Amino acid sequence: MSRPGSTRAERRARGGLHQLPWRNLTNPYAPIKVISEDQVEAIHQASLRILAEIGMDFLHPEGVSLLAETGCAIEDQRVRFDPDWVVEIVGKAPARFTLHSRNPDRNFSMGDNSISFATVASAPNSSDFDGGRRTGNFADFTNFVRLGQHFNIIGLFGGYPVEPIDLSPATRHLDCLAAYVTLSDKVFHAYSLGRGRILDALELVRIGRGVSRETLSEEPSLYTVINTSSPLRLDGPMIEGLIEMARMGQVVVATPFTLSGAMAPATISGALVQQNAEALATIALVQTVRPGAPVMYGGFTSNVDMKSGAPAFGTPEYTKAALAGGQLARRYHLPYRSSNACAANAVDSQAAYEAEMSTWGAVMGHANLVMHAAGWMEGGLVASFEKFMIDVEICQMMSEFLQPLEIDDGAIDAIAGVGPGGHFFGSPHTLERYETAFYAPLISDWRNFETWQQAGAPTAADHAHRRWQEALAEYVEPEFDDTLRAELDDFVGRRKSEGGVG
Amino acid sequence: MSRPGSTRAERRARGGLHQLPWRNLTNPYAPIKVISEDQVEAIHQASLRILAEIGMDFLHPEGVSLLAETGCAIEDQRVRFDPDWVVEIVGKAPARFTLHSRNPDRNFSMGDNSISFATVASAPNSSDFDGGRRTGNFADFTNFVRLGQHFNIIGLFGGYPVEPIDLSPATRHLDCLAAYVTLSDKVFHAYSLGRGRILDALELVRIGRGVSRETLSEEPSLYTVINTSSPLRLDGPMIEGLIEMARMGQVVVATPFTLSGAMAPATISGALVQQNAEALATIALVQTVRPGAPVMYGGFTSNVDMKSGAPAFGTPEYTKAALAGGQLARRYHLPYRSSNACAANAVDSQAAYEAEMSTWGAVMGHANLVMHAAGWMEGGLVASFEKFMIDVEICQMMSEFLQPLEIDDGAIDAIAGVGPGGHFFGSPHTLERYETAFYAPLISDWRNFETWQQAGAPTAADHAHRRWQEALAEYVEPEFDDTLRAELDDFVGRRKSEGGVG
Repeated sequence: MSRPGSTRAERRARGGLHQLPWRNLTNPYAPIKVISEDQVEAIHQASLRILAEIGMDFLHPEGVSLLAETGCAIEDQRVRFDPDWVVEIVGKAPARFTLHSRNPDRNFSMGDNSISFATVASAPNSSDFDGGRRTGNFADFTNFVRLGQHFNIIGLFGGYPVEPIDLSPATRHLDCLAAYVTLSDKVFHAYSLGRGRILDALELVRIGRGVSRETLSEEPSLYTVINTSSPLRLDGPMIEGLIEMARMGQVVVATPFTLSGAMAPATISGALVQQNAEALATIALVQTVRPGAPVMYGGFTSNVDMKSGAPAFGTPEYTKAALAGGQLARRYHLPYRSSNACAANAVDSQAAYEAEMSTWGAVMGHANLVMHAAGWMEGGLVASFEKFMIDVEICQMMSEFLQPLEIDDGAIDAIAGVGPGGHFFGSPHTLERYETAFYAPLISDWRNFETWQQAGAPTAADHAHRRWQEALAEYVEPEFDDTLRAELDDFVGRRKSEGGVG
Repeated sequence: MSRPGSTRAERRARGGLHQLPWRNLTNPYAPIKVISEDQVEAIHQASLRILAEIGMDFLHPEGVSLLAETGCAIEDQRVRFDPDWVVEIVGKAPARFTLHSRNPDRNFSMGDNSISFATVASAPNSSDFDGGRRTGNFADFTNFVRLGQHFNIIGLFGGYPVEPIDLSPATRHLDCLAAYVTLSDKVFHAYSLGRGRILDALELVRIGRGVSRETLSEEPSLYTVINTSSPLRLDGPMIEGLIEMARMGQVVVATPFTLSGAMAPATISGALVQQNAEALATIALVQTVRPGAPVMYGGFTSNVDMKSGAPAFGTPEYTKAALAGGQLARRYHLPYRSSNACAANAVDSQAAYEAEMSTWGAVMGHANLVMHAAGWMEGGLVASFEKFMIDVEICQMMSEFLQPLEIDDGAIDAIAGVGPGGHFFGSPHTLERYETAFYAPLISDWRNFETWQQAGAPTAADHAHRRWQEALAEYVEPEFDDTLRAELDDFVGRRKSEGGVG
């Protein structure tokens, strides 16, 4: 098998930071299964019972009436689902699809063994070691977009890395989405906060790609995460966004946020039952709007600290839930979304071991989309520039881990050439691989203690602090067609003059 | 399945730190396979070719003559092996065995899906945040033994946690091994640094257990790690130790230290070929001494930093090698040993993400023995008290990850009771599980940012610093029979008066 990005020319092309090349990454290893097929089936059946007997509240009349037309049982906002119909309608969703970017080189597949990493999303605060912890703002937003564009390991944007509180809520989405289109050529996400914002987002992504509405409708190019308001409720603005996204054939990532012990039962399998029920109901609504529309099965089951009620992430329970979530997604032949989450307050060992526990759960659960893959801290309350770089290192290491081992036919000759008691430093076999043999880290400091101490004893967080600033300095804005830029500016200007969304 | 240690009484019994209970831990999940069966076979065949064509140097006449008697081809110290004979003799090793401690509750199985964590071993330096980095000494040695005894997640000792340089080399082993026996009731390791030290260790472990030499010979109670002097060389003191251990039916862990790009080819598969050749040759010698003697297949393949030649650990290549090593061990139906290694200089994010990459490789490679599981830093040059606690947390999280998910038959009723839009904080289903539902961390700080900041913004390393001191204060010396203690003291006194080993 070929080893992408391992040639010297490709290494040189990576620039000063020697980051990994862009990869359409796939996971060559079998997923970790933490539950049996019987247990998958038990969760499936239990979730169907919940949808049939308890039902789910849809807090928008259009959602209720769409489901009423299919024959669901309606009582005010409460919708109860026939199990056979749920299985049938969910079965209409595609097992895989391509997400299209304005740069076709940044397209990638969602489904099967593909895996992509998205930036931190939706943090109300940002932080870095110089500026400290602060309320989210547009300057930090754009810097995170630049970093997400710069690093090849970042496949797409998972929502606003940090919420730009300094922008008006009515027009914030126009500024943010336009920044994605101009500062980056990667796929991005739009929030389902009512119909208006989604319609604007659909037009902005269409302009960015320079395609017709008809083409857009056939080519998924935008995605939205639909969080249920657990337990068993879907809010009105989410429903409006879901409907418009599905109508245009764009991607809905159905993601219940089932925090075990708070919004879901205090057992992981119980929380998974609820997650599955809510995900199936959400996907059923999408497929009712447009059969065959692209969806993803999202899992975000974690647990609270039972002493304080505080949410916890990257726990052993979280990892098991992420792996079981993948098994459930595959049960329905749906692409899977998971996350790199942690609860740490500092860019320390805890931040790293919780991020690793989450990321291993996502990667070995065969998540096709790893949300919050870089920068998430404090259970989502902070987007940290230093944590972003630590996570870039973690994700790059995962990307290398997923490059298959190849049998080295020259090994015996190399060992014979060196012989017992020798060393391989000067061996021709080694020299041929001098620049490409192993992963070269961005953060890890492998100097010996004395040299490291003389250099000021920098921690990984110190390296991260320097690295994100270097990356911002190296950032190059991607090319963007002048005509499309003018069209984009016109649209944003017009919509702003109209006052944005109400 | 039952969930050990989850009852309130068991939790209370854990004492102040609420650590996890002692478990005879097994891995219920299928291992991650990073190479195909064909690739396993290719590595096997290549390693047999190396042993047949290049051979291996045995730097002790007794090792050479033992192998000569079996029909191996001898040329000075160089031994060349017939491939069929290697397969046959390695096949005599048992697939599993029980390691016996002086406290039968601390016995455990090595083989199949069992997994145990051993302390850091063989560091020349120790460090903690108060005392700084210092040359290894006996006071630190005994404190690491106390910590290893205190924490239930630590199954056994993997060699001297730190080398007590302040003790005379001739009698150091007597003091250290006696300290294991008296300060702990867990299994320990003896270094194969010549015949004398191993004979003393065998007598000390026999006295500690209070058994006859005949019983000891039938019950593996001591283990030694045999590192080859890669490439393809086995040193004299190691050979002497190996022979005495095998004769007494004690455990030899054959562990080539095949650092890819230095002592092994600069490809991971090439290094694995060499690892496998050296491990098979070592195991072949053990089985020649005593067919059926307990052995383990050890893997310690990592890579150097190609820019500096510095050894690196917890790299993506390391993780792949650890997982492939497990596949090779299973190819020979042998128990497997791996490690939790890292190259970090500080107790920071790097220390944690490298430890996680190593530990995931070990755990999902189905290592039965994870050496250096707690406290290893700087590629083995330092045993850190704070890193020890970070690793205890990482290993405890793994232990919880390995507890199988159970289907919760009460989940539907719990969800029905709460209903759409409710919460589970006060649900009877939650209250029943209040104290036992989820893993309670030793280190992780889940307080919100404001509370955490008011508490002085402690990092995970700060918590670790406090925790190991609390654990030392809580440590209780295990009971030890007075007669055996007198016999132990007599033996140590006599051997010291004889001058120890030459």
